[in-house]
Amino acid sequence: MTSHELPVKVAINSWRLVVERANTIFSQLQPDQFLAEIAPGKNRIIYLLGHLTAVHDRMFSILSLGPRLHPELDAVFIDAPDQAEAEIPSAQQLKQYWDEVNQKLQSQFQTLSPDEWLLRHSAMTDEDYAQDPTRNRLAVLMNRTNHLSYHLGQIALALKSEA
Amino acid sequence: MTSHELPVKVAINSWRLVVERANTIFSQLQPDQFLAEIAPGKNRIIYLLGHLTAVHDRMFSILSLGPRLHPELDAVFIDAPDQAEAEIPSAQQLKQYWDEVNQKLQSQFQTLSPDEWLLRHSAMTDEDYAQDPTRNRLAVLMNRTNHLSYHLGQIALALKSEA
Repeated sequence: MTSHELPVKVAINSWRLVVERANTIFSQLQPDQFLAEIAPGKNRIIYLLGHLTAVHDRMFSILSLGPRLHPELDAVFIDAPDQAEAEIPSAQQLKQYWDEVNQKLQSQFQTLSPDEWLLRHSAMTDEDYAQDPTRNRLAVLMNRTNHLSYHLGQIALALKSEA
Repeated sequence: MTSHELPVKVAINSWRLVVERANTIFSQLQPDQFLAEIAPGKNRIIYLLGHLTAVHDRMFSILSLGPRLHPELDAVFIDAPDQAEAEIPSAQQLKQYWDEVNQKLQSQFQTLSPDEWLLRHSAMTDEDYAQDPTRNRLAVLMNRTNHLSYHLGQIALALKSEA
């Protein structure tokens, strides 16, 4: 193992684990549950699914892993709040995008060497990175894992068994 | 920098960032909001605060960072569901424990060398660790950061501005 291989592997494992947990929850939800609000007056699950897909899709750009798959999602699921747009993709369609984006990301993760994970991400200037080398690709990966966990806690509220 | 120093630093930063976000949210909640359920029929915020404190307090043991501070919390906040116990500490008391535990953890984190973060955690046998070296202290840290993010997404629902 090269120097950074083990910690990078741990971070990718952690990301994959949370994505798998999300997949399990999404597969347990009925079509009408996607249209329900996570709590009274809050986002609907379908909006969070679209939001998470758009945020993960943007990881291709920020990690310099090639072109993103669904830039059209940003207008509805990042720039606008829930219920702002009358026409949004179906939950089934979004679940397909979600799987597609995460599978492609995961295979692209493998193309980066451990050292490349420690390089600055594309939203950083060389000067900023020189000042704070912890703002690298690995930090983006952990941040997005936390972001997914955050919304997963909300989505799980729709499951009967979860508290 | 030694080999693992940068990735370990990124993971500790990520943990601290989410703890700080939690502190900001807890400081914005009014005393009566801690007694509210995060959604109808779900856990109360005070229970989640106690639960998170107990889970973080257990990190001293699993990471071999010395004796834990509040083992008495487990019976109420880990072994039992919310509303099972009539007598629980106040939100103010729990917030004090929460700060105490996280501050002590953070200073203990600094006592571990980067390589020690990659060693197996105390709940693993040598044989298991030999089979899967990614099940180390760093993995525990990321898992707990995700766990905190998960419940934070739920707690944030109590804030007017959050969706």
